[in-house]
Amino acid sequence: MRNVISAVCIKCGAEIEPTPNITVCPHCGGLLDIKYDYKYIASRVTAKSLAESRDYSMWRYREFLPVEEDTKNTPLRVGYSPFYEVKKLAEMLDIGRLWIKDDGINPTASLKDRASAMAVAKAYEAKADTIACSSTGNAASSLAGNAAAAGFKTYIFVPSRAPKGKVAQLMIFGANVISVQGSYEDTFMISAEAIDRWGWYNRNAAINPYLVEGKKTVSLEIAEQLGFKMPDYVAVSVGDGCTIAGVWKGFKDLYETGIIDRLPRLISVQAAGCCPINRAIESNSPLQPMEENTIADSIAVGVPRNPDKAMNAIRESNGIVVNVTDEEILGAMRLLGRTCGLFGEPAGVTGAAGIKKARQLNLIPADATVVGIISGNGLKDVNNAIKAAGEPISIPPKMDDLLNAFKSKGFNLK
Amino acid sequence: MRNVISAVCIKCGAEIEPTPNITVCPHCGGLLDIKYDYKYIASRVTAKSLAESRDYSMWRYREFLPVEEDTKNTPLRVGYSPFYEVKKLAEMLDIGRLWIKDDGINPTASLKDRASAMAVAKAYEAKADTIACSSTGNAASSLAGNAAAAGFKTYIFVPSRAPKGKVAQLMIFGANVISVQGSYEDTFMISAEAIDRWGWYNRNAAINPYLVEGKKTVSLEIAEQLGFKMPDYVAVSVGDGCTIAGVWKGFKDLYETGIIDRLPRLISVQAAGCCPINRAIESNSPLQPMEENTIADSIAVGVPRNPDKAMNAIRESNGIVVNVTDEEILGAMRLLGRTCGLFGEPAGVTGAAGIKKARQLNLIPADATVVGIISGNGLKDVNNAIKAAGEPISIPPKMDDLLNAFKSKGFNLK
Repeated sequence: MRNVISAVCIKCGAEIEPTPNITVCPHCGGLLDIKYDYKYIASRVTAKSLAESRDYSMWRYREFLPVEEDTKNTPLRVGYSPFYEVKKLAEMLDIGRLWIKDDGINPTASLKDRASAMAVAKAYEAKADTIACSSTGNAASSLAGNAAAAGFKTYIFVPSRAPKGKVAQLMIFGANVISVQGSYEDTFMISAEAIDRWGWYNRNAAINPYLVEGKKTVSLEIAEQLGFKMPDYVAVSVGDGCTIAGVWKGFKDLYETGIIDRLPRLISVQAAGCCPINRAIESNSPLQPMEENTIADSIAVGVPRNPDKAMNAIRESNGIVVNVTDEEILGAMRLLGRTCGLFGEPAGVTGAAGIKKARQLNLIPADATVVGIISGNGLKDVNNAIKAAGEPISIPPKMDDLLNAFKSKGFNLK
Repeated sequence: MRNVISAVCIKCGAEIEPTPNITVCPHCGGLLDIKYDYKYIASRVTAKSLAESRDYSMWRYREFLPVEEDTKNTPLRVGYSPFYEVKKLAEMLDIGRLWIKDDGINPTASLKDRASAMAVAKAYEAKADTIACSSTGNAASSLAGNAAAAGFKTYIFVPSRAPKGKVAQLMIFGANVISVQGSYEDTFMISAEAIDRWGWYNRNAAINPYLVEGKKTVSLEIAEQLGFKMPDYVAVSVGDGCTIAGVWKGFKDLYETGIIDRLPRLISVQAAGCCPINRAIESNSPLQPMEENTIADSIAVGVPRNPDKAMNAIRESNGIVVNVTDEEILGAMRLLGRTCGLFGEPAGVTGAAGIKKARQLNLIPADATVVGIISGNGLKDVNNAIKAAGEPISIPPKMDDLLNAFKSKGFNLK
């Protein structure tokens, strides 16, 4: 990897050789961050060279990614998701300009595919035959799908409370799913022991430093889709903190290579019922665990496993923190659906809910330019869509009944 | 529309002016088919000009589409879905080469987005403010989403048996959903009366001749993604017949303009429990209605509304018909998931199930080159995914229990 210098511990500063299997710092247990040779990258890639690329997947940004030059692209088409300017919504929210990046349009329907594709690429390099993780949600299904396409076996540990539908998706992808009769903590611990015992490749976004590098491709795309003219703000739903850390890393990489000339400010959006990262930022105090009281299950993380990188990102960007209620999240689902034709899961639209709230609270000005990211597809969680959506008009099959129903609804049809 | 000559009745041959609002032949009630000036199209588009296009949506094929030159592209990014060569699966099925087109990766997660985007484009031209249809499935949700993004109101009539999740998706997109306490036939009749009364734009794939033209873009993409070297066979799940008719129209358009030099043979795949089109072809007799006994709800159409175009397509292509059982459909879900990392709904993978069966029955040779289309995302129907997927390994959170479980499963881990 001529573009990578080392993996640096964000706690003690030790520089580690970036082999495919690294997890945390061998000296102090701190999280590692991939350090690049930006001069080298800048000599290999420009806005113009990107514009000429015909690879419409995350691998169009190979020069920014920590993979060997001869590592194959992963098989599923991850990334280069749609990016929409949503003028009507901008007007409704009284915001200068607003764009939505729909990352629910990915092979397994979430942004996590970017991290899982990176895990698969590094597992090629590690010459592994098996990849493992513990998770109940999008990380698990994206690993299962991307690994299956690439011919890897997977072992995925889920707590027994995991929703049946998500388990079914894992099983469809042929994962060996181990349902652990215990808490998520129990599940994580036994997965760690098993990974250690059998030497499986470890896909755990918080401790595998490469995965954040996969996630950062969402920012590289946003920048390119904006013609490298950066917005004032980028809003991100925040759970364990890996995604917002990846988003920030992407923008910084572009800035360091001179492809963009300013950095956006991050808006870190958490559910009010589970906002330990935002609370620590607001109170400028160490992170305290919180309960997980929110419908936005993918970001219901009371004890985030990557708070340091996330908090660094929010602070470095001179960011804003906003917490939104479940009602506001359901409202954002309706608003994006009705105004933009976009359907996100609760955690997926939390960032957008935060944009609305940040404007209402006047945390961002009326002429702001803002990007929101939908991180997961609404089809992942139909029960909450039902909560958000309300009931249809119900009638017997007679025109008179239809006319009466329309009248009682106040529809004024000519 | 300089590329369009007329709309021709496939029954009486009458040529009708192709205004945006046409439905069926005013003379005999037959279905209309859009007739193109292929010489004009060939003068405007070549394989090379397509290769230079930067529009990665279905609108990259505007020259082949029946829209006015100044009609806006529709807002959601429909089409240009992923196309995968699946070597391992080809080997398992003993087929020369095999590709899968994943059309579940569309804004509302099905191929129907192509038809609904076309409906929106024609509704622009008709200067309509409202689009309506009756449907319980993917046509309804794709119309609701694409219309919402474009700022149209929608009225969508569903029978009261429609699954709650699909109704919720419609409601999220802000459709006015009318749940009719009656059969699908009752629902269709009252929707027709309402469309007539209020002059809404009619999105009904069987009678609106433009919608098949949207669907045909899947074939234009398949051809382009193959470098215009055509496969021997293309397998399609068949319900009311509109999709296979669209698939054939796309290939024929390319052939007529000289961009491809041979046509593939179609494999028409229906569920064994509901296969009126295939039965009519096999027995070379008029179509007879059938019951709708299959889990593949999106193609469970006992009385197809577009059998003529579908049957013409199968016959013209010297096509093959194959019926698959529900067990074979669930098996195809597992096979595509485990081997390719692709997750389709039952109707979405029926085409792939048919490829396997056609090879087993020796209806296609071992050296055949074959394309299958996944027409809808597996997340649309999680209950059937659970049926297909089986149960995970369940253990208490102890390593000894894990070891015992692996041993009893016959896993040979070192």
